[in-house]
Amino acid sequence: MIKIHTTNCGIKYKNRDDLLLVTFDAAVNVAGVFTQSTMPAFPVTWCKKNVTQGKARALLVNAGNANAFTGKYGEEVVSSNVSEVVKHLGCKAEEVFVASTGVIGEKLKYELINNSVAKFFAENSANSSWEDAAKAIMTTDLKPKLVKKSCKIGDKKIELVGFAKGSGMIAPNMATTLGFTFTDADIPSEILSQILKEATQDSFNSITVDSDQSTNDTFLVFATGEAQNQKITSFDDAALNEFKTTLLELLTDLAKMIVIDGEGAQKLIEIEVTGVKTKADARKVAFSIANSPLVKTALAAADPNWGRIIMAVGKSEVATSPEKIILKIGDYQITENGAVCESYVEKEVHEYLKNSEVKIFVDLGMEPLTSAASATVWTCDFNEEYVKINKDYRS
Amino acid sequence: MIKIHTTNCGIKYKNRDDLLLVTFDAAVNVAGVFTQSTMPAFPVTWCKKNVTQGKARALLVNAGNANAFTGKYGEEVVSSNVSEVVKHLGCKAEEVFVASTGVIGEKLKYELINNSVAKFFAENSANSSWEDAAKAIMTTDLKPKLVKKSCKIGDKKIELVGFAKGSGMIAPNMATTLGFTFTDADIPSEILSQILKEATQDSFNSITVDSDQSTNDTFLVFATGEAQNQKITSFDDAALNEFKTTLLELLTDLAKMIVIDGEGAQKLIEIEVTGVKTKADARKVAFSIANSPLVKTALAAADPNWGRIIMAVGKSEVATSPEKIILKIGDYQITENGAVCESYVEKEVHEYLKNSEVKIFVDLGMEPLTSAASATVWTCDFNEEYVKINKDYRS
Repeated sequence: MIKIHTTNCGIKYKNRDDLLLVTFDAAVNVAGVFTQSTMPAFPVTWCKKNVTQGKARALLVNAGNANAFTGKYGEEVVSSNVSEVVKHLGCKAEEVFVASTGVIGEKLKYELINNSVAKFFAENSANSSWEDAAKAIMTTDLKPKLVKKSCKIGDKKIELVGFAKGSGMIAPNMATTLGFTFTDADIPSEILSQILKEATQDSFNSITVDSDQSTNDTFLVFATGEAQNQKITSFDDAALNEFKTTLLELLTDLAKMIVIDGEGAQKLIEIEVTGVKTKADARKVAFSIANSPLVKTALAAADPNWGRIIMAVGKSEVATSPEKIILKIGDYQITENGAVCESYVEKEVHEYLKNSEVKIFVDLGMEPLTSAASATVWTCDFNEEYVKINKDYRS
Repeated sequence: MIKIHTTNCGIKYKNRDDLLLVTFDAAVNVAGVFTQSTMPAFPVTWCKKNVTQGKARALLVNAGNANAFTGKYGEEVVSSNVSEVVKHLGCKAEEVFVASTGVIGEKLKYELINNSVAKFFAENSANSSWEDAAKAIMTTDLKPKLVKKSCKIGDKKIELVGFAKGSGMIAPNMATTLGFTFTDADIPSEILSQILKEATQDSFNSITVDSDQSTNDTFLVFATGEAQNQKITSFDDAALNEFKTTLLELLTDLAKMIVIDGEGAQKLIEIEVTGVKTKADARKVAFSIANSPLVKTALAAADPNWGRIIMAVGKSEVATSPEKIILKIGDYQITENGAVCESYVEKEVHEYLKNSEVKIFVDLGMEPLTSAASATVWTCDFNEEYVKINKDYRS
């Protein structure tokens, strides 16, 4: 059984929960993906090391302090918090997973977390909901991000619930921001890990708010096995197909929720790139557009200044030439033969760009080497509000 | 003799000059560096092709329209403008260099430029100054950027005058924004080209305003030979040392002027990176910091949120580890042993960051493979004003 505890432990925020503890009555399978930063926070280092043994009894997450770049002290915070959980649960230390988010470089008062953990167990107060959990891990997020889905493995119904937080320092690279998914599926950790890695690439690894990769990116999946589905022994087992698709959908939903709630964001922008040699090229072009301040400020104003998108394609340095490029904004074709289409009516595209969700499509006109040589990434527009939030608020 | 003509030709701006024609009575040596964008503007393609023959009789520059991504039409604009100059000067087409800056993808009315060129010659109106020239190539620049220097080659005094424009879409890569330098030195084009390329790397290729590389980046150096200095036959000739240093200084001055005048900028930020294996690594780390929206918004508020600099070092993925990093802001050491220094006083650094010029120094603590394994780059802070300018203004 899964127990959810949330509370305000007093690290930073007032009048809202900022600590989450999830416990499992028995060890469950776990898999994770993490930031590629060379400056990983201590909770990341801890989880990376311990996720390989594949079993979990608890997840402890705090918001408001990243526990990153705090020297030996940061390590002590993790081991003190983990010990506190171990004391009450009677599990192994490596079965306790931790994650932190918030300001970098400031010392986290571990006793505040320990006191709350002790209280959780003393009061046996596991009456929080998944909604509470999603709220307790927020920093500058305006909205909690929670997704529930179900699917089947064989004849057994499988439930999945996932939540995540944003909303600045968002450009996950082979990893994610903080995100967690719980499922009752019975899937061995190594296979779960493969499924998670695959699903991460086209979801969390395909979003950007501001091109800044966090020191704390962590995504963990916990599988309790309570659904008692058929035994899974291989990643390629067809019985997993629906689960794979559903997990990808869940992660994509969460990733897009993060982008929509990006700091100051008013629009979700989907960028699809085709007509390149490899998927890596497609991602390079898509992120070159998605991270361009000039593209994103134009979109904030619903200005069809498409020349900036062409600029961003050009600066990616992926092989192509102007006359090969087809650029579409929504259903409107913008370019052909290295120039703007005769049919282009700026006013129409300006109207389209006022929508809260907009699509940009670029085909570079090159021969793909593989059928997978395309990419879709999501970003948001770039407003004065982003600058304001990040000038005024330290997180 | 150099003749400078400027006028308002009516492409975009009112009440200011937007066209520059510089002519030489006889062919002079020329060298250039250009954008690496795969979407180069037509003037760039033209100059790249013709600079190899090394001789110039004229430079024609317009502001307000980039003549980029306008299909076959854009090529016709260049050839029509070049023909007009050829008609009056009686030179070869390949001796006429052109550059454009402004909005991408809109058709440039070449007859406006041709009419003005015809008028220049009809009226013989070459009474503009270098200051006028620097003003005529501006777009969103608030200030003209003009630098004059002198040096010696052997016993001859050499004069150099250079000017450039910014001020968004600034992240030159192996190239520059629009910039021009005129000198009376007598240096063969191929050697001039080598000197320019070397000087570009640590000046124009070491700045960023917004990480966006332009389709029109062009820097040209014209050498008239009027100083009649000693014959130069080799790049390594010691007589060139002072000229090399002076050209680098001139380019660095212009590059820093571009950054200071970056859209919305209030601060010049110098970032020096050492303690890495290669210069390429040093540049990667420095640009990772210089392009981070979170670092730049914090600096806009004079907020010593140094954790964001650590984040930016981490996301560069250049090999190091937290305990090896020394971060300094101005003369204040911020980190040691993977954590903030005991001596760190936030208020002092906050005061320092209120200056209009600030320095960030990062040593990654790795063994350099070469003595040149360091880099200095310049950027500006990131303000609401940048977003405002780029939402409101189309250029």
